[in-house]
Amino acid sequence: MPETIGFIGLGDLGAPIAANLLAAGLPLRVFNRTAAKADALVSQGAARADRAVDAASAGGIVVSLLWDDASVEEVVTRDGLLDRLGPGGVHVSMSTVSPEGSKKLAALHAAHGVQFVEAPVFGRPEAAVARKLWIAMAGPEPAKTRVRPLLDAMGAQGVFDFGEQIGAATTVKLVGNFLIISAARSMSEALALVANGGFDPKPVVEMLTQTLFPAPIYQTYGRMIAAGTIAASQSDIPEKDLGLFEKTAREVNSPTQIADMLLEIVRAQA
Amino acid sequence: MPETIGFIGLGDLGAPIAANLLAAGLPLRVFNRTAAKADALVSQGAARADRAVDAASAGGIVVSLLWDDASVEEVVTRDGLLDRLGPGGVHVSMSTVSPEGSKKLAALHAAHGVQFVEAPVFGRPEAAVARKLWIAMAGPEPAKTRVRPLLDAMGAQGVFDFGEQIGAATTVKLVGNFLIISAARSMSEALALVANGGFDPKPVVEMLTQTLFPAPIYQTYGRMIAAGTIAASQSDIPEKDLGLFEKTAREVNSPTQIADMLLEIVRAQA
Repeated sequence: MPETIGFIGLGDLGAPIAANLLAAGLPLRVFNRTAAKADALVSQGAARADRAVDAASAGGIVVSLLWDDASVEEVVTRDGLLDRLGPGGVHVSMSTVSPEGSKKLAALHAAHGVQFVEAPVFGRPEAAVARKLWIAMAGPEPAKTRVRPLLDAMGAQGVFDFGEQIGAATTVKLVGNFLIISAARSMSEALALVANGGFDPKPVVEMLTQTLFPAPIYQTYGRMIAAGTIAASQSDIPEKDLGLFEKTAREVNSPTQIADMLLEIVRAQA
Repeated sequence: MPETIGFIGLGDLGAPIAANLLAAGLPLRVFNRTAAKADALVSQGAARADRAVDAASAGGIVVSLLWDDASVEEVVTRDGLLDRLGPGGVHVSMSTVSPEGSKKLAALHAAHGVQFVEAPVFGRPEAAVARKLWIAMAGPEPAKTRVRPLLDAMGAQGVFDFGEQIGAATTVKLVGNFLIISAARSMSEALALVANGGFDPKPVVEMLTQTLFPAPIYQTYGRMIAAGTIAASQSDIPEKDLGLFEKTAREVNSPTQIADMLLEIVRAQA
């Protein structure tokens, strides 16, 4: 019998990932702040934890997929979750946080003998269902080796290892989300010109995504924008992630011109 | 014996395209303002025209690949080139111009009975040599049918027909170049954060271009930026093309926030 995994955070992405783990035959103990979100998984065989700490067991593995730095920190510090996990325990943190926040979390875990693996994930909920997620990971080698089969079972079509340095995988996630927003917003501005110039955006999207930009983001957003399915202002990436990119870049004196402008656009349309 | 084609404009991209036509067995009469740039083609069998008008013959085909609206207009109006081409003549205009400029040119051609086909091209000079160009075209059906084999022989791996409305293909070109600049500059800002955060950009480029952005622009620019081969400030797309996108968007009351900001970045780094 494989060990029971704690899974904390059953949002739009967490729920289908947890369902993939269950479907792979891995016993789960799940927790979500809004308890009703655990019901479907419990009916599929997951055990319910009444508090986040109850999802953890000594020396075990806990996975979390939460909203931001503060929510991850709250979950691991409240009720002694890290004490419960203790030496030999591993926390796989999949939330989109700041590199600084991730380093702070790693230090906090180390103080309890818990190994911290950052494993942010790219993919919409449909991609989780279709097992087409991409995961970036960083952390101590033994912990990564231990949790790697878990990441595959979550529905990853690819897992990219960025070494032991905490912050590396988190940075990749921020950079990827920044590039997604930039591509989607640029596609919006481009297709607006096509339409306002009196031309049909559809064949333009078809040409561009078959030639210069044969990438899922351009194809998906381009077709939705051209078909009028989504407003140009919509995007799946939260403003908060763009804010994290900008804040992180400022802290290391890296350019933020494009991020600043994208934030302005996103905020004006919010 | 196939008809002789006039080819005007033997720049970085024009020269290899003309060479492809020659290699395909098409007789060429070539003109370039700096005459020495025609020498290599002449040594490969092209005839030399001393003036642009001498590249044209009654009812024939002239191809041009020049710098901007003004240079195309100057070439077709100077010395009576359109009179020489006359009824039944076709001008394949491959320069990156404005949609308004292209419409103006089409009207000028129509007044001389000459058919105007806009056929802007995507691809670096190496892509021309490798016969990997992408061409967008718009214009009257009979003229497009007549010149289509020519476009294939130029080294196009794909030709996309945007109908008869002049300005359509030109708009696609402006939009494509805008998206290329946006992608390249966003990649620069993203990889700067990775490097300034103390991480290696190379594996980040590898992951992103294998997952979210498997597109030539991201791969090519990303690897060059990560390897330090090019400065983040360099790009193959002239500032003038971004200016045309912005000007055209303003004229039709289309958003220009991203174009404005990219122009600011490009100009600050010029």
